[in-house]
Amino acid sequence: MKKILAINSGSSSFKYKLFSFPSETVLAKGGAERIGMQNSVFKIKLANGNEYIKNKAIPTQEVAVSMLIDNLKQYHVVNNLHEIAGVGHRVVNGGEIFPNSVIIDDENLDKLFDLGELAPLHNIPEAKGIQAFKKIIPNVPQIAVFDTSYHQTLDKIHYLYSIPYKYYKDNSIRKYGAHGTSVRYVAPRAAKFMHKNINIARLIVCHLGSGASVTAVKNGKSYDTSMGFSPLAGVTMGTRSGDIDPSALQFLMHKTGMNIDEAIDMLNNESGVLGISGVSSDMRDLIESKDKHAKLARKIFINRVVRYVGAYAAEMNGIDGIVFTGGIGEHDPGIRAGIMSSLRYLGLDPDFKANRTDGEKFISKPKSKVKALIIPTNEELMIARDVVRLTSENY
Amino acid sequence: MKKILAINSGSSSFKYKLFSFPSETVLAKGGAERIGMQNSVFKIKLANGNEYIKNKAIPTQEVAVSMLIDNLKQYHVVNNLHEIAGVGHRVVNGGEIFPNSVIIDDENLDKLFDLGELAPLHNIPEAKGIQAFKKIIPNVPQIAVFDTSYHQTLDKIHYLYSIPYKYYKDNSIRKYGAHGTSVRYVAPRAAKFMHKNINIARLIVCHLGSGASVTAVKNGKSYDTSMGFSPLAGVTMGTRSGDIDPSALQFLMHKTGMNIDEAIDMLNNESGVLGISGVSSDMRDLIESKDKHAKLARKIFINRVVRYVGAYAAEMNGIDGIVFTGGIGEHDPGIRAGIMSSLRYLGLDPDFKANRTDGEKFISKPKSKVKALIIPTNEELMIARDVVRLTSENY
Repeated sequence: MKKILAINSGSSSFKYKLFSFPSETVLAKGGAERIGMQNSVFKIKLANGNEYIKNKAIPTQEVAVSMLIDNLKQYHVVNNLHEIAGVGHRVVNGGEIFPNSVIIDDENLDKLFDLGELAPLHNIPEAKGIQAFKKIIPNVPQIAVFDTSYHQTLDKIHYLYSIPYKYYKDNSIRKYGAHGTSVRYVAPRAAKFMHKNINIARLIVCHLGSGASVTAVKNGKSYDTSMGFSPLAGVTMGTRSGDIDPSALQFLMHKTGMNIDEAIDMLNNESGVLGISGVSSDMRDLIESKDKHAKLARKIFINRVVRYVGAYAAEMNGIDGIVFTGGIGEHDPGIRAGIMSSLRYLGLDPDFKANRTDGEKFISKPKSKVKALIIPTNEELMIARDVVRLTSENY
Repeated sequence: MKKILAINSGSSSFKYKLFSFPSETVLAKGGAERIGMQNSVFKIKLANGNEYIKNKAIPTQEVAVSMLIDNLKQYHVVNNLHEIAGVGHRVVNGGEIFPNSVIIDDENLDKLFDLGELAPLHNIPEAKGIQAFKKIIPNVPQIAVFDTSYHQTLDKIHYLYSIPYKYYKDNSIRKYGAHGTSVRYVAPRAAKFMHKNINIARLIVCHLGSGASVTAVKNGKSYDTSMGFSPLAGVTMGTRSGDIDPSALQFLMHKTGMNIDEAIDMLNNESGVLGISGVSSDMRDLIESKDKHAKLARKIFINRVVRYVGAYAAEMNGIDGIVFTGGIGEHDPGIRAGIMSSLRYLGLDPDFKANRTDGEKFISKPKSKVKALIIPTNEELMIARDVVRLTSENY
């Protein structure tokens, strides 16, 4: 039996899940929050359902990692560090340097920090998280699993922007996409459900959460995806704008005196359904709200997903299935119904009754030419599987 | 018989066409170039085919307008100013103030200059053009015909960006679109060709020229369109980038030291197929080029149009027809074939043989469920028709 940790680090927090392999069961999960701030807290929930919440000072990531190890030992989830075969870390952007998950030695850690330039909001905290784990448990392999890797199969036609080519060559400006680990889990599982060989399937995966993306999966590979150079682009999200005419940004900057960093910050944190509605970035709040802008925000969200599904159906000359995943994709029947209603022209016959409840299943009628499915995602499991793969002797 | 002038003003030029109504024949056409610069030139081509090119100093727009009137008289195309029932001017952005073509009195001229803020590259030269005509021929009605008017039927869901709502209310940030005058001409003509009532048709009009846009026309009205707050957004164009992740812009600005105006200028003037290919902004040059980036630029152009056609097919839940117009749309069989090849899933059966040559016709097979057509555009005629409508007594 191997034990694998899957880690998702933020700037002042991390979440973890401890898996047992080969059963792929979860032995413990939780997180450290408000690291380096007041009122920091550490949480651990065991397989038996017991949860412990510890309000204790966590001044640094290293202290948080030590606390994790101590707690895993305290509750006898791990008795000896040797049991942990590896730790997998979610990293948003692997650029073109990391087309696959990798073991992070010192050289790769340097490369990760260098890549931070491309995605400073995410990569730097993630690299620091790996650094902390390397320091506290230096003999356990640390593996980076990139949100972008899965999209490295995109053709130049799809990943290049229509700007001077030198900005790609010299400055790495291109579409990288994100949510790749989620799509890599969800797409084959959907194909299996459909009794369809993933290597000849045309699927569209809608990963809809506070971050949201649409990915075209053709013959088992990412063919195109809605997020871009950064996770800002594509469809409307919780607080992110998705696509916008850059001229509008120029106009607003001159009007309001914002500089480019402030403008992009506005697009990342004050926009999306929060910006339109003025109510909330959370779809659940918008359903309950009577505010007309809340309804408008939901309609715009649906429309932007429909646009991308349509665009990718055209790129693949039709589709075999559409898959919903992520917090909204798995739990918001209204959003799913709104999207599916626009896709009858593709041969989709939605099963609105099945759609009313959640769970891994078909939400298209049995005879529907194009299938629609809910497939709950499991990025942590994918991360853990990569760790097993990369740390097994016969790899 | 009425005579109508249609004018397209640039910052140092204008083009004109003189129509005779009701026959809608062209009596003369030409333009003034390099106004206020060295080596300025005035051109007039008559219905009999004779063309006269005059190298003469044209210090101001007013001088150019006087020259136009003098030439029309000199060649007996117009004998008396009273014969000119009105002058129609192309104006790029009418904002939300002008949902229709209007006669430009002094009050409307002021509004036009105010709107210049929204589209400084185009609106200001156009307003100055109208001002010059008003000064030289004050008794002839001047009419503004807006590229945006046709798109004022868009729903909020389609024209709002997913940014804080206040930027729409306070700063007029929204999608305006462009090429409306062209689509307004082309769409009903295509419907007639298809023996389809425009009021129940779902069409996609691809206006592909050095500027390029894709418009969804549903029930005779613009339903969605690819250009945005400005004509920069949407598909790849001759020198314009079309859509791009704004984060990429932020990254480039920090890397290169460009400010926002320089960055937007780069997106407008150094990007598109010119930027990708490094060869030319003109599709005709790219066909002939053996450069691999020239081929790549053409493929990216095709892909971006396909994406929007697919997106709008989804928004309208299928389409009845797709229409090609504009310089590339009318004269580049390779681009048309590339786009049509991706649309079989919609029920389009392309007639690649018919597609090899130009002209107003079907380029789908007779039994094709979805029709494809070439319809040469005629924006000047639409402008002239609006002048007739707005200046006729029983309007």
